[in-house]
Amino acid sequence: MTGLNRRNLLASGAAALGGAGVGWGTRGLRGDHDGNGTNSASGTEPASTEPAADVVTGGDTIDFHGVHQAGIDTAAQAHLSLVGLDLLEGGGGEELGRMMRLLSDDASRFTSGRGALADTEPELAESPARLTVTFGFGPRVLRMLRPAYDPGLQELPAFPLDRLDPAWGQTDVVLQVCTDDPMTLSHVRRMLLKDAAPFATVRWVQDGFRRARGTEAAGTTMRNLMGQVDGTVNLPADDHADLLWSTGRASGFDGGTFMVVRRIEMDLVDWDRTDRVAREFSVGRKLADGAPLTGSAEHDEPDFEAVDAVGFPVIDPASHVARMRSADPAERFLRRGYNYTTPDGGAGLVFLAFAADVDRQFVPVQQRMDELDLLNEWVTTIGSAVYAVPPACVEGDFVGREMLGLPSPTTSGGDA
Amino acid sequence: MTGLNRRNLLASGAAALGGAGVGWGTRGLRGDHDGNGTNSASGTEPASTEPAADVVTGGDTIDFHGVHQAGIDTAAQAHLSLVGLDLLEGGGGEELGRMMRLLSDDASRFTSGRGALADTEPELAESPARLTVTFGFGPRVLRMLRPAYDPGLQELPAFPLDRLDPAWGQTDVVLQVCTDDPMTLSHVRRMLLKDAAPFATVRWVQDGFRRARGTEAAGTTMRNLMGQVDGTVNLPADDHADLLWSTGRASGFDGGTFMVVRRIEMDLVDWDRTDRVAREFSVGRKLADGAPLTGSAEHDEPDFEAVDAVGFPVIDPASHVARMRSADPAERFLRRGYNYTTPDGGAGLVFLAFAADVDRQFVPVQQRMDELDLLNEWVTTIGSAVYAVPPACVEGDFVGREMLGLPSPTTSGGDA
Repeated sequence: MTGLNRRNLLASGAAALGGAGVGWGTRGLRGDHDGNGTNSASGTEPASTEPAADVVTGGDTIDFHGVHQAGIDTAAQAHLSLVGLDLLEGGGGEELGRMMRLLSDDASRFTSGRGALADTEPELAESPARLTVTFGFGPRVLRMLRPAYDPGLQELPAFPLDRLDPAWGQTDVVLQVCTDDPMTLSHVRRMLLKDAAPFATVRWVQDGFRRARGTEAAGTTMRNLMGQVDGTVNLPADDHADLLWSTGRASGFDGGTFMVVRRIEMDLVDWDRTDRVAREFSVGRKLADGAPLTGSAEHDEPDFEAVDAVGFPVIDPASHVARMRSADPAERFLRRGYNYTTPDGGAGLVFLAFAADVDRQFVPVQQRMDELDLLNEWVTTIGSAVYAVPPACVEGDFVGREMLGLPSPTTSGGDA
Repeated sequence: MTGLNRRNLLASGAAALGGAGVGWGTRGLRGDHDGNGTNSASGTEPASTEPAADVVTGGDTIDFHGVHQAGIDTAAQAHLSLVGLDLLEGGGGEELGRMMRLLSDDASRFTSGRGALADTEPELAESPARLTVTFGFGPRVLRMLRPAYDPGLQELPAFPLDRLDPAWGQTDVVLQVCTDDPMTLSHVRRMLLKDAAPFATVRWVQDGFRRARGTEAAGTTMRNLMGQVDGTVNLPADDHADLLWSTGRASGFDGGTFMVVRRIEMDLVDWDRTDRVAREFSVGRKLADGAPLTGSAEHDEPDFEAVDAVGFPVIDPASHVARMRSADPAERFLRRGYNYTTPDGGAGLVFLAFAADVDRQFVPVQQRMDELDLLNEWVTTIGSAVYAVPPACVEGDFVGREMLGLPSPTTSGGDA
């Protein structure tokens, strides 16, 4: 696969380029770009304001077609809706193919700002706002359709600390819908699920969010809901296509990858009782800017040899940053997680990782965390799944066709 | 009350200024402002992009203090979290005062980009993104604390078509948290509810969304999830302070207003079965741009006298636009609703209206809708509440103190 576009991978790994603290203190950077001084920092006048005359970005598009599926090395949009689907009882390749043909056509239209063929509210589709729709397939689908085909998709091994709830478990198909606009998200999800309804049922929907587009400077590493800068070490910006995209492993899978979904619940009530020193000790990074405890900026290399005045390591070997670090450069993957909250006050992270080889790149890291990580006191994985994410399709084709061994689309077959 | 700022009211009623269709076709308007051509409309190259180098707006603030509470005539932010609280059994004025002192201090800090006094993740508070926190009080609170005080707060009359679920009913206190950033929303809500916990329980949380900031041109009227342009007729831009803000009605309430909350469920499954002609007939407006069926642009005045070739009215008298229209200019209010979805695929509108006199301005309109409106086929109100929204407080004071007849804050009293 030579389709790697260095700038694109760089974009998704932009964390590696954003300076620590760039996202903060932006008030100082912000010019009076609306030209009418609507933003009063203080004062006794009613301060209600109209928003600044922003650049309109709803029309920004990300191409659905290409070499790889979009939504992987795409700089993360503000909103996620991840939907786990199970094929209806008795459904096989033909049904799956019809569903994927419909959904691929929908996605192709939506991502370019057009309504679906059978769209009942096409006006809601006119602002894609960097919409991407990414499809993945669970192990059962490949076992059922192509038992001899092995692109490298295996269920994750058991991790003893997991407390898995089947309600968030492995499904046959996953749809990852991401966009900067929440209206677009809700409309696109609704239309996709209408078209999927004759073929599959929804097991779960995992919605998530990051900072809105424009809140922070592009490239600022996100924080999770524990307040930590989360994702500083991500797949580096260049020369690591081999860690992200599959090559030569199976026919029809070149340019594909694998998606790991882990739903990680946070115990914020207990976290709140933990003082900042203990928090930073557990993470191994400073909360203020994400700098390692041995450094002064987010992207400084942690110094695991450094000791304090009485000889203890500054970064505890059981801290998250120490446990996640590997001497093996292959133990890396692209992280693209989203925060979530629940109506009852719960919170957590929809951890999403993409890797060309899950067993080689992701599993050892997760095993180390499972064995020992001070952060485990406050985080529990309650859902887990893994999907084969085939390459993109060309226009008129559908995602996964080659991988699933299905025939080319014909002119027959209906829309929902 | 002379504090009305014409530009501000204009901002919230900005719908009246936005041209029809301004929000669409923005791709044409959008310059290549990122300077690197990342947005490919089509093509075979992988189109993953980094976001444009937007103006950073997370630092934009709206003053919590002033004459009126913010979040009313503030141009609607992208995200809403509306929280209904009930005071704990036995809680009276003293407890409510302590809670409001804490929450007002929190809100004052959060809206200026600072963490709360007891904030456990203050870094998450550093991008207010036009955050507003607005407080209202239900009828029971005034009856309990000041039975003789009458700013004009009454429960709404019964509307026969309502199918009210007490789970979404009247509460003692409401917090309206709005911001353009979903991370800020979740953090601020969590911290406010932590500080409220010793005094009150959460009855409901109603989250909602509009277009993200920047998706459309400022002033574009929002669409609801039925795809309709929703909110074209809003409180006009000038000379209607009397319809929004209370004056001379009760001591400590000048500059206050009332908030009506109606949770309106939409039957999108049935709506989807309805063709566009029938939809437009029911609404009385065109779906494409919100123009009345007798006009060509969103803000054209509907012509209720116009008839078609066979003599039938072009805008049916039972259509939504006809039923909502009143010859009485006092039957208007400021609408500030948000769309909602539920995990099971449900959808609707958190309808929020602000008016100086609910009985005079809102109730007749709602009664007309209840009596007859073709849209009722698809919408059902399942929650309803009304709140007195006092004026803003000055720095160091707390919202509602005068209205609730509570003593000035002293230096005693603790933080949560």
